[in-house]
Amino acid sequence: MTIQTAIDALAPVLGDRLSRSKSDLDAHGQSETHFRVTPPDAVAYPQSTKDVATIVKICADHDCPVIGYGAGTSLEGHALAVQGGLAVDFRDMSAVLEVRAEDMTARVQPGITREALNEELRATGLFFPVDPGANASIGGMVSTRASGTTAVRYGTMRDNVAALEVVMADGRIIRTGTGARKSSAGYDLTALMVGSEGTLGLITEVTLRLHGQPEAVGAATCAFNSIENAVAAVTATIAMGIPMARIEFLDAAAVAAVNAYSNASFPLTPHLMVEFHGTDAGVAEQAERFGEIAAEYGGAAFEWATRAEDRTRLWTMRHHAYWAILATRKGATAIVTDVCVPISALAQAVEETQSDIDASPLSAPILGHVGDGNFHAILMIDPEDEAERKAAQALSAGMAERALRLGGTVTGEHGVGIGKLDYMAAEHGGGWDVMASVKRALDPQNILNPGKVVRMNG
Amino acid sequence: MTIQTAIDALAPVLGDRLSRSKSDLDAHGQSETHFRVTPPDAVAYPQSTKDVATIVKICADHDCPVIGYGAGTSLEGHALAVQGGLAVDFRDMSAVLEVRAEDMTARVQPGITREALNEELRATGLFFPVDPGANASIGGMVSTRASGTTAVRYGTMRDNVAALEVVMADGRIIRTGTGARKSSAGYDLTALMVGSEGTLGLITEVTLRLHGQPEAVGAATCAFNSIENAVAAVTATIAMGIPMARIEFLDAAAVAAVNAYSNASFPLTPHLMVEFHGTDAGVAEQAERFGEIAAEYGGAAFEWATRAEDRTRLWTMRHHAYWAILATRKGATAIVTDVCVPISALAQAVEETQSDIDASPLSAPILGHVGDGNFHAILMIDPEDEAERKAAQALSAGMAERALRLGGTVTGEHGVGIGKLDYMAAEHGGGWDVMASVKRALDPQNILNPGKVVRMNG
Repeated sequence: MTIQTAIDALAPVLGDRLSRSKSDLDAHGQSETHFRVTPPDAVAYPQSTKDVATIVKICADHDCPVIGYGAGTSLEGHALAVQGGLAVDFRDMSAVLEVRAEDMTARVQPGITREALNEELRATGLFFPVDPGANASIGGMVSTRASGTTAVRYGTMRDNVAALEVVMADGRIIRTGTGARKSSAGYDLTALMVGSEGTLGLITEVTLRLHGQPEAVGAATCAFNSIENAVAAVTATIAMGIPMARIEFLDAAAVAAVNAYSNASFPLTPHLMVEFHGTDAGVAEQAERFGEIAAEYGGAAFEWATRAEDRTRLWTMRHHAYWAILATRKGATAIVTDVCVPISALAQAVEETQSDIDASPLSAPILGHVGDGNFHAILMIDPEDEAERKAAQALSAGMAERALRLGGTVTGEHGVGIGKLDYMAAEHGGGWDVMASVKRALDPQNILNPGKVVRMNG
Repeated sequence: MTIQTAIDALAPVLGDRLSRSKSDLDAHGQSETHFRVTPPDAVAYPQSTKDVATIVKICADHDCPVIGYGAGTSLEGHALAVQGGLAVDFRDMSAVLEVRAEDMTARVQPGITREALNEELRATGLFFPVDPGANASIGGMVSTRASGTTAVRYGTMRDNVAALEVVMADGRIIRTGTGARKSSAGYDLTALMVGSEGTLGLITEVTLRLHGQPEAVGAATCAFNSIENAVAAVTATIAMGIPMARIEFLDAAAVAAVNAYSNASFPLTPHLMVEFHGTDAGVAEQAERFGEIAAEYGGAAFEWATRAEDRTRLWTMRHHAYWAILATRKGATAIVTDVCVPISALAQAVEETQSDIDASPLSAPILGHVGDGNFHAILMIDPEDEAERKAAQALSAGMAERALRLGGTVTGEHGVGIGKLDYMAAEHGGGWDVMASVKRALDPQNILNPGKVVRMNG
């Protein structure tokens, strides 16, 4: 019973849905960050839930690790085959199966990307709001409990997944959730699966909550003369209960990178980028109230994006900020941090992080979904430079420890993967043992994405 | 190792925090509905998390069932000691431990009721919105994933519990969740505990999400000439994305009961009771839009409640509707149904239910949180009359089966308890086995509220 015998057993069943080509293995062993290439032993391309169930059953028979794979946009090495095994790439399961406009739900296969989904939804008047920036697959977003720029208004994947179809570790197919908007019928298996990073089951179908495309949208950028003032404006805005659709922070270094990459000319100071959704009157009211708060904290250089194309340009710039920052230094790679703290601790967390960065030899622009208390420092390093790597690790550890000290989390939206595993005991205490108990109960052989989220005994 | 040896071991430890008086046992063996009295063998009144941990540890040592007890307002017999054992009454753990206004959270003990909590929050400008009608304890509301009249706007307990402290089946104390607004750090143990009905752990502390008290509130009642039109107005309102704070349905029989009980004089036709929260301008805009939709479906006899005391009277009437209905027949008891269906199936579900009731010998007023697709028929029976009991069971079964057929759930908000256990296999299929696996992993001795939510082998 080995990985090799599993693949030998899968080959005749899957035919050309199984690949062992070096280029395929290498592609699935990459990640978008600093982790070393860790290829699987084979890649399966299932075309149906039945395919997935067959794959998992055969892998269970042979004790072979099974690792779900979506769009490959994870920043924490979730899909790396750290114990070898089979990558299950959902590329060929990317259909929209059903849109129920009246119920505001869509049933989709996990391989569809959020951009493709919204393209298909355009004519319905509905949209799927969760927006992590990258054009991630929905299955991947479910698995990491993704969120991003719009979570402050629409919630995270926790809030926007209504039901799932899941292949369990023994190949059983189950459904979680119902078509109703709420239920009190037992344990919330949907929520248990969301964020479980492929370690409890392979998601083969997702029922998503949709939202009405807003009647009116307004967006703006606003410059502040200090991080303190920008963050204070955020906390005041949240306290006022203004239903921001987006409220994003970029520090001066991030703004400089965006200017260079996107040919923009924002003043080189900390910025907020905001968006309002609602009726015409509602958006006008929200914008006015936000404007008053921003002015109170010295917000200036207000730029309103009233035309749709200007807003698209604005958010494209924001979404490309990671690439913009990477482009500031040729050959650099990034360690992306992802802390999230209580709003009351946001100012302290950002300021102390900024001080630590200033005291380090690294460039590390900060940006974040500050309405949720979530921010990232993009720690730029030469991957070959051991001193820089150590400095980045020290900064990253400092941020994580500070987040925990302030009552927050070491990962607001990127997930655990292999990058945050070392902090799980500190974050969850005895709760991490409970997670391991759940894992052992649902995947006793530890074949589903082993080495992620929990540590098993033996 | 028996229940009796457990109680003998607890007695010296708990002193007067343990009761074996007949009146105490009887009180904890009651429920508000038709289930027969099922008293525990003793009642503990812990005063701290440490007390709870000690109690559970001793009960685990002696294989003694442990059943959490809040305000006793469950409608599905959740707290009945169906296998005997110890009731743990959280009466003396009802403090507000901390309010973090800037983070909009409150940390409370499980015994506090939602009304007492909101009384304590009044001066903060914040409130806790989840409102099941009954003055339930927060711990009970967490355990049953309660919701009620405001879920259409503010969500259910699933959405409003940020973190928990839980005593596990072996007496370990764990914390789930963080103080941050979101996290991707592993399995969502908070969501797993919410709705688990005391079968996975005893909740000893709850961190709740609070909301800003709305600047402006408007409420109204509106009469319709048919159930069809009232429900069609609801689905149209939801489709328009009007952010209703409440949208409640009462059929003519429910209205008649409310009139008699609360000395009101609503026309004897189906009604919607609605509420809007927002800014002055926002509430005016929502009310206008809702008015247009209601008019389209023949809504009439609009009564606006602009003064706070009129709104209080309105919602008190609604909250007393269950008692009003019970009062229509002396000596009657009720089987309360609780189905929730996709909004697209709501009209069909309500109409078919109404037909079934018309064809039955029973009186069974219908009311519901229709913005969620959730409604209740209050099946009135003489508890001594076997024919009526059978007719009610047939109606209840018909509603549950219809809800499942339409893609919904047999319990939108009341939970499983012992009343809905028989439908779990049909609702969840293989998912119910997964729930049992989780239960076995976290409570291998099956001492935590045994006989609820799942069925264990042996």
